[in-house]
Amino acid sequence: MSRIASVVVTPIAFRDPPLLNVSGIHEPWALRSIIEVVTEDGNYGLSESYGDEQTLTHLQKVAAILKGIDVFHLNELKTIVAEATASQSQQSGIELAPGTNQATTLPRVFAAFEVAFLDLIGKFTGRSVCDLLGGKVRDAVPYSAYLFYKYERHRFAQDDWIDAWGEVLTPDDVVRSARQMIDQYGFQSIKLKGGVFEPEQELEAIRSLREAFPEHPLRIDPNGGWTPETTRLLMPQMEGLLQYLEDPAPGKDGMAEVHQSASMPLATNMCVIGFFDFPEAIAKQSVDVILSDHHYWGGLQATRDLARICETWGLGLSMHSNSHLGISLMAMTHAAAAIDNLTYACDTHYPWQEEEIIVGGKIEFEHGSVRVPDAPGLGVELDRDALKQLARNYQECGIRSRNDVKEMQKYEPSWTGKAPRF
Amino acid sequence: MSRIASVVVTPIAFRDPPLLNVSGIHEPWALRSIIEVVTEDGNYGLSESYGDEQTLTHLQKVAAILKGIDVFHLNELKTIVAEATASQSQQSGIELAPGTNQATTLPRVFAAFEVAFLDLIGKFTGRSVCDLLGGKVRDAVPYSAYLFYKYERHRFAQDDWIDAWGEVLTPDDVVRSARQMIDQYGFQSIKLKGGVFEPEQELEAIRSLREAFPEHPLRIDPNGGWTPETTRLLMPQMEGLLQYLEDPAPGKDGMAEVHQSASMPLATNMCVIGFFDFPEAIAKQSVDVILSDHHYWGGLQATRDLARICETWGLGLSMHSNSHLGISLMAMTHAAAAIDNLTYACDTHYPWQEEEIIVGGKIEFEHGSVRVPDAPGLGVELDRDALKQLARNYQECGIRSRNDVKEMQKYEPSWTGKAPRF
Repeated sequence: MSRIASVVVTPIAFRDPPLLNVSGIHEPWALRSIIEVVTEDGNYGLSESYGDEQTLTHLQKVAAILKGIDVFHLNELKTIVAEATASQSQQSGIELAPGTNQATTLPRVFAAFEVAFLDLIGKFTGRSVCDLLGGKVRDAVPYSAYLFYKYERHRFAQDDWIDAWGEVLTPDDVVRSARQMIDQYGFQSIKLKGGVFEPEQELEAIRSLREAFPEHPLRIDPNGGWTPETTRLLMPQMEGLLQYLEDPAPGKDGMAEVHQSASMPLATNMCVIGFFDFPEAIAKQSVDVILSDHHYWGGLQATRDLARICETWGLGLSMHSNSHLGISLMAMTHAAAAIDNLTYACDTHYPWQEEEIIVGGKIEFEHGSVRVPDAPGLGVELDRDALKQLARNYQECGIRSRNDVKEMQKYEPSWTGKAPRF
Repeated sequence: MSRIASVVVTPIAFRDPPLLNVSGIHEPWALRSIIEVVTEDGNYGLSESYGDEQTLTHLQKVAAILKGIDVFHLNELKTIVAEATASQSQQSGIELAPGTNQATTLPRVFAAFEVAFLDLIGKFTGRSVCDLLGGKVRDAVPYSAYLFYKYERHRFAQDDWIDAWGEVLTPDDVVRSARQMIDQYGFQSIKLKGGVFEPEQELEAIRSLREAFPEHPLRIDPNGGWTPETTRLLMPQMEGLLQYLEDPAPGKDGMAEVHQSASMPLATNMCVIGFFDFPEAIAKQSVDVILSDHHYWGGLQATRDLARICETWGLGLSMHSNSHLGISLMAMTHAAAAIDNLTYACDTHYPWQEEEIIVGGKIEFEHGSVRVPDAPGLGVELDRDALKQLARNYQECGIRSRNDVKEMQKYEPSWTGKAPRF
């Protein structure tokens, strides 16, 4: 009954605005994969993961050998995924995005199925995924307004789609986009993706945000775009302004160097991207706050393990996001609702996406938070027409792996995406 | 349906042989508590925990306020237990036994209910507790032959009960009792509780065991009975003899000192008895192997968290035991069956107990292992007649807290139980 009859992995693509970051710029289409696990009794479990070619290849390889597995047997799933990804996992990468870093292959592929398995276990038991993780410690999960510098439109897109957010380049633009996002979603915290312009200009934007939103905790994330020296020189200007400073400088050593003189907590989703990073990061005191992300940390249960480690070593816990749709948002929400010490508002790219693949369309935010559903499983159902459309986008868009560097080179041919630049 | 209607906590006492250890000697009766959680639909979940007065008081306090709680809501249970035990948990103790150390009060009281909740969740979902923990990575869980030095009988007991194991004082006695236990249970590993006699005598017993059982991994546990200096002098004699050396010297600093010249893995259930001990123990490199024990680490799910930490920091994982009956044995078995990196045979005092309170009597061992049941929940049912008898024992035995020191003072009035003695 709870044994797997079939698994379908569908790559999809959806519109993504021209968001700027340390590596370059988002391409016109973001990729994801949608995982449907169907059991012998006809129930189905859902999950959403990365859609890049490397992940997709692994997902499809594992999907093909899951028939007959009991969805309660997550340990068996781990063994299967470990064997299927063994040759890849041995390579340790140092790429910028944890979602494509080779070191996260096993947890990333495992997580994609674990969420679907938990969705199914929830449906079998009549309990929400949150209940399977021990139940709600909060009824709604707060997210942050995740601001990006951006161009008004993609200059090299195949069509002339234009997003709702306009050009964001100056401190005034940043405040305007914050207001726009907060008016629409009610967010109570603000994060600015930095590492794009001269640090002075980005700090000016932070000061403008502080003036316009005196009560909202603020964060900036230069994605390792500053050297430790630059960061040390800049920190006095950020004194008292930030809830945390996220990945100012690259690497455990760079962050540890910054940490010695930091007057605010240092957060990361770059130098600690898996359990394997902890021994060194803790020994070196590189960071104060870990950004979880079930998509590459190994799933929702692994996120609880991560929470235990953070509690044990006195580290804060927040949540990272990549471009994603509603299945991921609900998985993130169930996990965050069950984790007591996840005390920071979570990151989400969700406002930047217009499309959806779940029944009912875009998930609603109240005062910047998403309510935790009580329905069995994740509490979302697949809109199969929307899935078809987004799968068609994938087939037609031509993108197979996210490459912000290459996209930026269309604008600036000499662009390398190498960090730190400042 | 899965809400709690009532909770009953029953203190019990059962016969315990005169087992010697660093603190003194086991009293004639060992105490436990049996927790029955009954839900509105009449299902019941079982758990077994410590029976000392301090734990019992907490268990009864919490039991009285659990009505209406959903057994899936383990996070809510944690909050309730934290509030009910708050004043106690703030005191940090340095007592010898983790089961009565004040620092473990919250996880210990939580664990007692968590196991019963998981038993019930298993019954609701038709799945074994092991499946709720991700499913079997092994079909049977290996335990070790847990040898003690002992007297033939309790000299100061109210009656003349005598156990089946005879006097164990010399190296030959140790080999004889090992043979007796291995013949009966089929254990494939041997652990000797040390810290009782001069270390030279105990090492002679280890050498005799090696000769008699050339293939069985051996461990000795002096319970912090040796100084670091003594341990350093002794270690060359143990070279190549031990699978691990358990708590030779007391404290994280003592163990760290020993560790610097140790040629075998160092294990502990004394200097790391909760998550709170990890930061210091890892920074100081005090130990190589952690002995888990769901009874004081915070339950079966917490044991998985512990396993993740051990995996992350490259530590080994084994399992500790106190005197216990079959409900605990099955809880230990479900946890160990679901934890991949619990690679050592688990400790159990089970052979030392003659009594049982589960239907069917004593659990069977095959080749030293306990098979993991596939039945819903823990897979054990309460023998209510036996429970009545053991509850009567408790009422009549007069013991309310384990005190090996006081019992030993009946034999040796000047005994202090202070360690290290050697």
